[in-house]
Amino acid sequence: MKMCEVLKMALQIAVLSTSRIVAEVMREIGNWPEVEVTAIVCRPQSAEKAHAWVAEYGVPAVYTDEAAAYAAGGFDAVYIGTANHLHYAAAKRALQAGYHVLLEKPFTATAAEARELFALADAKGLVLMEAITIPYLPQYAFLQAELPKIGEVRGAMASFCARSARYDDYLKGIWNTTFDPACLGGALNDMNVYNLHLLCGLLGVPGRAEYRPSCGPNGIDTAGLALLDYGGFTAAALAAKDSEGRNGMVLQGPGGYLVVEGGTNALPVVYSVLGGVRGGGTRVDGPKLERHRMAYEFAEFARIIAEKDADAEAAARMRTMRVMELLDVLHEK
Amino acid sequence: MKMCEVLKMALQIAVLSTSRIVAEVMREIGNWPEVEVTAIVCRPQSAEKAHAWVAEYGVPAVYTDEAAAYAAGGFDAVYIGTANHLHYAAAKRALQAGYHVLLEKPFTATAAEARELFALADAKGLVLMEAITIPYLPQYAFLQAELPKIGEVRGAMASFCARSARYDDYLKGIWNTTFDPACLGGALNDMNVYNLHLLCGLLGVPGRAEYRPSCGPNGIDTAGLALLDYGGFTAAALAAKDSEGRNGMVLQGPGGYLVVEGGTNALPVVYSVLGGVRGGGTRVDGPKLERHRMAYEFAEFARIIAEKDADAEAAARMRTMRVMELLDVLHEK
Repeated sequence: MKMCEVLKMALQIAVLSTSRIVAEVMREIGNWPEVEVTAIVCRPQSAEKAHAWVAEYGVPAVYTDEAAAYAAGGFDAVYIGTANHLHYAAAKRALQAGYHVLLEKPFTATAAEARELFALADAKGLVLMEAITIPYLPQYAFLQAELPKIGEVRGAMASFCARSARYDDYLKGIWNTTFDPACLGGALNDMNVYNLHLLCGLLGVPGRAEYRPSCGPNGIDTAGLALLDYGGFTAAALAAKDSEGRNGMVLQGPGGYLVVEGGTNALPVVYSVLGGVRGGGTRVDGPKLERHRMAYEFAEFARIIAEKDADAEAAARMRTMRVMELLDVLHEK
Repeated sequence: MKMCEVLKMALQIAVLSTSRIVAEVMREIGNWPEVEVTAIVCRPQSAEKAHAWVAEYGVPAVYTDEAAAYAAGGFDAVYIGTANHLHYAAAKRALQAGYHVLLEKPFTATAAEARELFALADAKGLVLMEAITIPYLPQYAFLQAELPKIGEVRGAMASFCARSARYDDYLKGIWNTTFDPACLGGALNDMNVYNLHLLCGLLGVPGRAEYRPSCGPNGIDTAGLALLDYGGFTAAALAAKDSEGRNGMVLQGPGGYLVVEGGTNALPVVYSVLGGVRGGGTRVDGPKLERHRMAYEFAEFARIIAEKDADAEAAARMRTMRVMELLDVLHEK
């Protein structure tokens, strides 16, 4: 088969879970020619939702048992969008069954678990990749290209906050997984992980880091401030699930500053302002999203598998391990 | 004299220094009916600039000697806009000579110096007030009124950054006072003091605080991040004199968030967004500046003197002491 033909074939995937993020993928994935959903795998109690998707999106198969799904096949990869605490075991089972895996953020509970999964993927000759939007967005490439123009970075702030629809329930004592420490919920894992990917992507690994959680009644961090110490400056990254805020990022240096306006998971507006002194400067606007924010990561996952692009795979793994190791530090009490 | 007549009379003031901030006051003060400049006091080497102001603004007197100016009189108060390290001694001399004093921020080098000056003012029966814009702006009253609506605060970020026109000289080894530790220059004293006044005004005194300076070649903080720990959350306040940034403030809680867009010394745009859940909410815009940002503080200074408003004077003093004590903590190594 020639490469052009390989590239034309959509990667056939099973989706694992009927969570909100998987629901969003199902709504959009029909527009992504690089991938095709051929199976839905879920818990028995979610079968009704899965069958509704079969009707709505024309997916050929539903399984309420992972082993049965993996035995039956009909796909080459599994997209895992379960609750956070189930990521590791679900990814391990899919890899052991011989499938490539695209695993939602936050990748695993610890960097050690992530390393173990990558070792398993290597042993099996499979691609394991984190489903993280940022590195694959055209706006991110713009920020990377503009970064050297601002000179030595002297300040950095990022914020990604969204008041959960379940926060009122939480305050009444009804803990959804998103606010349950046992499910690896909380603002650091769910929201700040985007700020960390963005800041580490642009600035590298901080020398020191600490987390200032704002905890709710059950001890989960419903909000929190991550402080990344880069020696010459400290970057501040705020995330919250208990409050709305003004989302975005600013990186600044003597040559100018880079701005993200909007969620750091999608970078909806990016620009640089260069050469200002007490105001002024030249604003250069970056590109906008042309596809759904998650289309890029799915397309890259499919491309890496199709082209066996070991360099891109290694780069993605490095980004994930960097953030997982940082999360380990931030989670330390 | 009846009160209405007292209020109609402009407070006659001498300005001390021909610094940039005093130059800005001279350009604007003709529009402020509450105050009138009747003397300029400066160093001999600045006499030429002072005489140019005499011609331009019609000020009757110039003195190049403070003692001579204070002996001659013709004013009731002194506005002190010298370099930071000269504030304390200059204010002390003016108070000892029997004049009310409006003293630019940062007020003094230490809280102890501030306490000493306030004690001297009390002993002399004079008003001593910090020339700080924020508490007297109508936008600040709006933020105070909106604050209870956001509920328990869960996150706060402020940024006030301006790349100094003298930063390039500084990097060449030419230290202007603004970048000289001996002159109490730097980003914390010059810029972050506004963020501190704003955050302490709205949130009160933090339980703990620390400063993460970004230092230049001579050890001055050309930028820096102040961290104010309020127990339930940590507020992050960035300031820089070496880089432009995106100035403003966000305070957020489960009920919504408050926004300042623009310099925290002037609060040019303020609004609240209440009741949003994953976006949305109702935006309420606050008032805009109707006068020059400094007109309000000068008007309040004149009013407190004219009306002998001891409560307002005490409140202003409390605000200043709170920030001075916080600056002491932040300046600790």
